[in-house]
Amino acid sequence: MLEKIDLDKKMGKKEFQEKYEELTYKLGELQRKYKECRIPLIIIFEGLDARGKSQIINNLLPSLDPRGFKFFYIQEPTEAEKSKPFLWRFWTKTPPKGLMSIMDKSWYKEIVLKRVDEKGSNGISYPEIKAFERQLAQDDNVLIKFFIHTSKNKLEDRIKDLKKEENFPQILKENLKEKSEKYDDYISAFEEMLESTDSDYAPWAFVEGNDIEFATIKVFMLLINIMESKLSEHNSSKGIQEGIKMFDPKISELSSSILDKVDLTQDIEKDEYGKELDKCKERLSSLAYDLYNKKIPAIIVLEGWDAAGKGGLIRRATSAFDPRFYNVIPIGKPNDWELSHHYLWRFWNEFPEKGNIHIFDRSWYGRVLVERVEGLASVGEWKRAYKEINEMEKSFVNSGAILIKFWLHIDQEEQRKRFKAREETEYKQWKITEEDWRNREKWEEYKVAVDEMLYRTSTSYAPWNIIEFNSKKFGRIKAMKKIIEAFEKRL
Amino acid sequence: MLEKIDLDKKMGKKEFQEKYEELTYKLGELQRKYKECRIPLIIIFEGLDARGKSQIINNLLPSLDPRGFKFFYIQEPTEAEKSKPFLWRFWTKTPPKGLMSIMDKSWYKEIVLKRVDEKGSNGISYPEIKAFERQLAQDDNVLIKFFIHTSKNKLEDRIKDLKKEENFPQILKENLKEKSEKYDDYISAFEEMLESTDSDYAPWAFVEGNDIEFATIKVFMLLINIMESKLSEHNSSKGIQEGIKMFDPKISELSSSILDKVDLTQDIEKDEYGKELDKCKERLSSLAYDLYNKKIPAIIVLEGWDAAGKGGLIRRATSAFDPRFYNVIPIGKPNDWELSHHYLWRFWNEFPEKGNIHIFDRSWYGRVLVERVEGLASVGEWKRAYKEINEMEKSFVNSGAILIKFWLHIDQEEQRKRFKAREETEYKQWKITEEDWRNREKWEEYKVAVDEMLYRTSTSYAPWNIIEFNSKKFGRIKAMKKIIEAFEKRL
Repeated sequence: MLEKIDLDKKMGKKEFQEKYEELTYKLGELQRKYKECRIPLIIIFEGLDARGKSQIINNLLPSLDPRGFKFFYIQEPTEAEKSKPFLWRFWTKTPPKGLMSIMDKSWYKEIVLKRVDEKGSNGISYPEIKAFERQLAQDDNVLIKFFIHTSKNKLEDRIKDLKKEENFPQILKENLKEKSEKYDDYISAFEEMLESTDSDYAPWAFVEGNDIEFATIKVFMLLINIMESKLSEHNSSKGIQEGIKMFDPKISELSSSILDKVDLTQDIEKDEYGKELDKCKERLSSLAYDLYNKKIPAIIVLEGWDAAGKGGLIRRATSAFDPRFYNVIPIGKPNDWELSHHYLWRFWNEFPEKGNIHIFDRSWYGRVLVERVEGLASVGEWKRAYKEINEMEKSFVNSGAILIKFWLHIDQEEQRKRFKAREETEYKQWKITEEDWRNREKWEEYKVAVDEMLYRTSTSYAPWNIIEFNSKKFGRIKAMKKIIEAFEKRL
Repeated sequence: MLEKIDLDKKMGKKEFQEKYEELTYKLGELQRKYKECRIPLIIIFEGLDARGKSQIINNLLPSLDPRGFKFFYIQEPTEAEKSKPFLWRFWTKTPPKGLMSIMDKSWYKEIVLKRVDEKGSNGISYPEIKAFERQLAQDDNVLIKFFIHTSKNKLEDRIKDLKKEENFPQILKENLKEKSEKYDDYISAFEEMLESTDSDYAPWAFVEGNDIEFATIKVFMLLINIMESKLSEHNSSKGIQEGIKMFDPKISELSSSILDKVDLTQDIEKDEYGKELDKCKERLSSLAYDLYNKKIPAIIVLEGWDAAGKGGLIRRATSAFDPRFYNVIPIGKPNDWELSHHYLWRFWNEFPEKGNIHIFDRSWYGRVLVERVEGLASVGEWKRAYKEINEMEKSFVNSGAILIKFWLHIDQEEQRKRFKAREETEYKQWKITEEDWRNREKWEEYKVAVDEMLYRTSTSYAPWNIIEFNSKKFGRIKAMKKIIEAFEKRL
């Protein structure tokens, strides 16, 4: 496919200058419209290039309002980045609403390199990338992927020219040389990439890159073209979202509730509790050091009814850990900056360093619980969240992290008692508000949401653990044993 | 000093449990008050400890609302952190208003290590640290510095115990051993630290650390004590700010204006401009690669009158740079998240990676220009900003960065012409707003502010360059030559 394309299309300097000015003006207008409509835009540049890409980018950036974009040059991942899931450094660079992220190289860089080097799988796959792009597109991000292509001759000419440029960075020179030597391997890797990842919501835009003037103008024209068409889609019917087949929720057909089957009468004697607790803590303390030594990150997700006992469990479990190597991440209402990104963005940001344990006090499941019940997310948003969450958790687990999810379960009567007790104990009063009582009135709606969550997001790689918490003592021991079990399984 | 202290104070388990609960309750209340009053709080833990510090921290953290603090374990700086100014990784961890940053080890770690190792200066000094603490305190941050001290015997006991704990991380074991072997050196380094950096606004709180229960209760009591007293200071007269002698502004006594002396008639022929521009670009392009090869970061600050020509200069200068290694940082109104931090926080965050060039389109000087003139900063705030800015720039330069500051100067008549031209050119209309005309009416007030800024922040390490921009062509060439000169000087 790539070899048949005529890469030598040219443009005169004069024609270039005229068009460049006209297109710059149009692009500026579009950028302002995107800001008004609060559409996030991601532009990536891939390709086999002989400096062409850099020059095109340097023609593009000054024609944009610098307050409206961030530019990223994607290099080799750092040691810290290598210990995160592959997509972590791209998720954390996604733009807030109305702004742009522009990247020289992207999430395709490593996968193409892998294909060329044939050094076997490093856990990255096109389905994972496609899920990432789909998730962004469904959240109204516009993705524009440029592929700048250059002929082998052009590459070789460039390498000859560079011999004279003494201070051109050595590492970039070697890069070019390697690309020229393995030109054919790169071409076939790129062909696979283009074929596997061209989609309605994130199409590739092809640019013949031998002549910089021609390529620059083509990039501008394609950019304007795609931006305009996505803008009209945005203004009409949110076409992208409808176009994609959504995960079909069939929960109404579920005849039984998972929660109804939970036996909440289970309890534990006080003495036994004390002994078990000490044993669990000792074991957890030791296992946590093992995780640190083996550089395995762990994520513990705590969800549950209000007053189920999340705080108490967290205090017991963390007292076993070395504070240098764990963090409690409380998840509340997102702030404005978080709201202006994809809802999963803030959770990607909180992925633990290697060997560390992150305990999420509430989590990304807010999307399908409180946001669903309170109408803070649209039906489309929370329905597709099950799949998005599963995909994210799969990325986490595939990258080598331990992921443990708990639903702390109590019944309605037990919750009423605990709320009352809080109201009556002076130093606990701040913990109970009108809102808690209001949420309680929606118990049934929440129950439907919890049931559907448990059903749709219990996967082989990240199953839910339902913990009976009518007896806090029983619940704590059971939960801590589950954590021990999960840690032991990996060690 | 340290050797004379009785470190063996003890507390029984029962007394501990009772006090712990009472103090936890008090601390919770105080934390909520700090949140209400939007006071940022920084707590650091230093000391020679035999695991005591970790255990104390693990007693402290669960007694706090996890939504209200972030905990940081300060390790060896990463490669990326090493290339930044020493204080960079601490500035970026300062808390927003109403929240806490708690650190195990802190900015004192490296300086103490340096003293012990005697490996000569690494550019960190106590005055720099004191300036940092003073700046935070003046911005209403409460700083609490704990020094946890342990006897040599206790340290040795701990090392013996650890031999049995196989999975306790090896690196931490070696750390303890090294501390025990060089105990006396550490003691004298710590004594110097305590003496040099004890201040009204950031006092050291000493804790005898041999007995964990005693030490925990003492930490809680000191914390509550200091938090209460700082809270009442905050509620009364903002005592901290008044207590510190402020840099005394004497600008009214300046009889002449720096700006008035600038010769704005200078110009350059069109042909010569074209030639000079090409020469400058070529030289800049080459020098920028040299900076990259030598890993030197560079910061270019652009300030100037509205319509002076910042955008045009940026476009010309950056067209010479490789887009992979530069960034334009446009500085506008701070967002809510930025506003909830010290005003210098967002600029520390934007310090360039090694070998990269950051061009600030407006900068931290907004504090003494627009914020002063428009009354967005209090008189106390903008007056002490001169000193704070000088200190920050000194940190930048001391860490090895190049810092170049430009004031682009035009006269009032030239500005009027350019505003009119913008209004009359269709594709430039978005660039001119009512606000620009309103700002223009305050020309004289701005001029006083600019003059004072030039006077007070032209330092030997970061002088201002006033560039005559009535002729844009003349100005661009002059500015680019200044950049070339500054780069050449360092290479």
